[in-house]
Amino acid sequence: MVGAKVVGDASTVIKGVAGVREAVEGEITFASSPRYVRLLEKSRASAAVVSRGAEGCGRMSLLVVADPDDAFSKIIECFAPPSPGYEPGIHPTAVVADDVRLGRDVSIAAHVVIEAGSSIGDGTVIRPLVYVGHNVTIGGECLIYPNVTLREDVKIGSNCIIHSGAVIGSDGFGYVTRKGRREKIPQRGTVVIDDDVEIGACVTVDRARFGRTWIKKGTKIDNLVQIGHNVVIGENCLLVAMVGLAGSAHLGDNVMVGGQAAVEGHTTIGKDVVVGGRAGIMKDIPDGMRVSGFPAKPHREELRLAASILRIPGLFERVRELEKRFGDLEHATDNDRQGD
Amino acid sequence: MVGAKVVGDASTVIKGVAGVREAVEGEITFASSPRYVRLLEKSRASAAVVSRGAEGCGRMSLLVVADPDDAFSKIIECFAPPSPGYEPGIHPTAVVADDVRLGRDVSIAAHVVIEAGSSIGDGTVIRPLVYVGHNVTIGGECLIYPNVTLREDVKIGSNCIIHSGAVIGSDGFGYVTRKGRREKIPQRGTVVIDDDVEIGACVTVDRARFGRTWIKKGTKIDNLVQIGHNVVIGENCLLVAMVGLAGSAHLGDNVMVGGQAAVEGHTTIGKDVVVGGRAGIMKDIPDGMRVSGFPAKPHREELRLAASILRIPGLFERVRELEKRFGDLEHATDNDRQGD
Amino acid sequence: MVGAKVVGDASTVIKGVAGVREAVEGEITFASSPRYVRLLEKSRASAAVVSRGAEGCGRMSLLVVADPDDAFSKIIECFAPPSPGYEPGIHPTAVVADDVRLGRDVSIAAHVVIEAGSSIGDGTVIRPLVYVGHNVTIGGECLIYPNVTLREDVKIGSNCIIHSGAVIGSDGFGYVTRKGRREKIPQRGTVVIDDDVEIGACVTVDRARFGRTWIKKGTKIDNLVQIGHNVVIGENCLLVAMVGLAGSAHLGDNVMVGGQAAVEGHTTIGKDVVVGGRAGIMKDIPDGMRVSGFPAKPHREELRLAASILRIPGLFERVRELEKRFGDLEHATDNDRQGD
Repeated sequence: MVGAKVVGDASTVIKGVAGVREAVEGEITFASSPRYVRLLEKSRASAAVVSRGAEGCGRMSLLVVADPDDAFSKIIECFAPPSPGYEPGIHPTAVVADDVRLGRDVSIAAHVVIEAGSSIGDGTVIRPLVYVGHNVTIGGECLIYPNVTLREDVKIGSNCIIHSGAVIGSDGFGYVTRKGRREKIPQRGTVVIDDDVEIGACVTVDRARFGRTWIKKGTKIDNLVQIGHNVVIGENCLLVAMVGLAGSAHLGDNVMVGGQAAVEGHTTIGKDVVVGGRAGIMKDIPDGMRVSGFPAKPHREELRLAASILRIPGLFERVRELEKRFGDLEHATDNDRQGD
Repeated sequence: MVGAKVVGDASTVIKGVAGVREAVEGEITFASSPRYVRLLEKSRASAAVVSRGAEGCGRMSLLVVADPDDAFSKIIECFAPPSPGYEPGIHPTAVVADDVRLGRDVSIAAHVVIEAGSSIGDGTVIRPLVYVGHNVTIGGECLIYPNVTLREDVKIGSNCIIHSGAVIGSDGFGYVTRKGRREKIPQRGTVVIDDDVEIGACVTVDRARFGRTWIKKGTKIDNLVQIGHNVVIGENCLLVAMVGLAGSAHLGDNVMVGGQAAVEGHTTIGKDVVVGGRAGIMKDIPDGMRVSGFPAKPHREELRLAASILRIPGLFERVRELEKRFGDLEHATDNDRQGD
Repeated sequence: MVGAKVVGDASTVIKGVAGVREAVEGEITFASSPRYVRLLEKSRASAAVVSRGAEGCGRMSLLVVADPDDAFSKIIECFAPPSPGYEPGIHPTAVVADDVRLGRDVSIAAHVVIEAGSSIGDGTVIRPLVYVGHNVTIGGECLIYPNVTLREDVKIGSNCIIHSGAVIGSDGFGYVTRKGRREKIPQRGTVVIDDDVEIGACVTVDRARFGRTWIKKGTKIDNLVQIGHNVVIGENCLLVAMVGLAGSAHLGDNVMVGGQAAVEGHTTIGKDVVVGGRAGIMKDIPDGMRVSGFPAKPHREELRLAASILRIPGLFERVRELEKRFGDLEHATDNDRQGD
């Protein structure tokens, strides 16, 4: 099935898949890096998928392939439970406004609410307990998981996935302070999400103050990410969990942002930029750079700085030593002169 | 409408509003800072609102006003879609306990659940799929967005806004460890939210172990913020996204906390304090201070420290140079003495 | 009731419990640390629970006990509102598939959705607006709060508590990039949560790519925590709010992780490890260590480093001084030689 060369017992019966450390007898695992090949020695798995060159490892049967990761994906599918099917149609408990336009084969599950003026494209699946606000547009072949909130006027493209607990179109955070009181600045724009976007669980995307907060085609966002009002995210970006983008930040295409990183409001990040985990971006970043640290700087510079910082206690000792030797020398020199 | 002086073509027809970088032909934008005035040069907008002194910029028509931000807010309203109206009354799918007290013109939407003993003030709007627990009190003119959870005994004042996915009154995080097991400390207090408070999407506010977790009048909280048990937040505070306040932290009035900042449990932050983004507050902060960094320190001190840190690699070189010159000098001095 | 020695007026009538700083006349408070004993001097409480040795403090009546924290817990219970009772049975608005297996005394509240193939153990309570996906297993005596999402195939043990807004079983974050496009790697495993686990509000736990994401017996997780795919968390761990565990991280038993800390993917943390707040773990940590900082290091080393860093501006001054004195000395030595 995966075009593997078998090393060891080809008749081993496999009942499931698991990670190297969790696998028990009767399970197959895989190792695509030297680190995991080493862990195979102690694994209880009955079989493993490995790359060429790792034929000798472990005591289990081995499937030797060119790309263990890809081969293992196929094996995973064999053992995976069937995905739940979603019947087209509207569940009787769903509350769908009369004027909502529904495409073909739309599936609307139990306790969904869809407000007036909205439209849902062909083949889109809306799971239970989802809220779709007034005048929302959702394209075709989308999958909206339970307990998602899509506020009024939001536009979602085709082939998008939105995970549970996500909130799209909440008000941006903006106030003016008058006589010590915080007065709300109306947030009158919306959110536009283009095709092929995936949005993680409990992600919050604020609507724009005006115009739109915009997530472009093919971008993927992990869980618990915050997207501020009027943010623009380019195509095919990856945002790892817990990232925060402040209002009006702009990301170019193909930007990757590591977990817990943050981007200051009104900053521009060029295309193809890689932002390290927990980096804090305080000013514009040109195309193609790799940055990390807080405040963010070129990654090599940050590595050099981080290495220097670890050696600081030693630097204090060196300066203390210099001061001592210097004092001694000054003393000796003075004595020399006095001795002249 | 905004009392502007028009520079350029006063007959330009405008069909929408957008940011400087997103605007296309037929749209109006604005520039309230020199940075954005510079961006106008490249903007495709057909018109822009600018302040006095920026008359010459860009190729679009200009509306010159004293306060571009304020003028643009008025223009936004003209182009914004109408806000959805919320009809008073109880949707037939809402499940409202018999003894719930409802004020005048309350709007309770589809699939809302309101438990026994609760009361809702005049004009308050509860959007779909909201849960209101036992003995909850909500004041008048509040707006509770879809998928909010208000646990039992929580008290919300008047004129509050609570965004989707927020959870008010979850249990505080407290355990005692007995024989290696974590035993839950009962969390028997509640949450009190005073008037004019706004709470962002997916914010979590834990109920107190005893007494109350308390958010005072006029405070505004951004998305994905964590408020621990028995926290007290003063009036008119601003908490930016992803802030975490650990249990029993106390904030005075008018405190501003930047994004991703954290406050250690049982610490007290005085009134009018400004906490920088990602600051980590480990001890009490007196009134009126501006702090940043982790651990948090006076902002000027942190700036000085941060500037020093960036220069550390250079400091290593200076010490290395000193050591070399010093070695040479010691050698020379020794030679001199030997030559004496 | 708590075996206390009363100092002061034993007839004081108490109407409620509150923190030292919030308490007003007629309320009882407690002080279990010297810090809070000092605060008692200014407290308006009419009574306080204190430990032996604190008999003289404050002007209120005192209850002197061996363990003020434990005694106060008993007093809290007296004044706490009754917990809402959850009636067994299925609310008529709940949508429960025909083949769902329900134990004895299960309580299924309004607007709950339970999909086909699921089973719920004896005495488990499912609060309103919860989604239970296909083939989910929930043990006995669990409490699932409103607006929780349990995706297909998830397994929850007995005696677990899951707080509102939590999402269990969302897809792991995994893509391969082909020709600049991000293609989704199927996430075909599940999540297994063992007995006695508590999961906070708006926590996200991703399903495994294969096999299972696994949270073992007795572990407690605070709000807004992110657990990546294929993560394994040992028994009796404590994860404080806003922690992020990247994919395939492994935590041993009894690990404590401070707020906002993060663990890199594929790293292993030994048992009994204590991870400081906001630490960033980039590599494996052996059993029993206490680590902090970013990147994480032994806590004593981090403390020493942090103390050094605070003194860096002073170090610059010392090096500048050395350079000056050194220049003077070189000059003097040259003069000496020229004078020879």
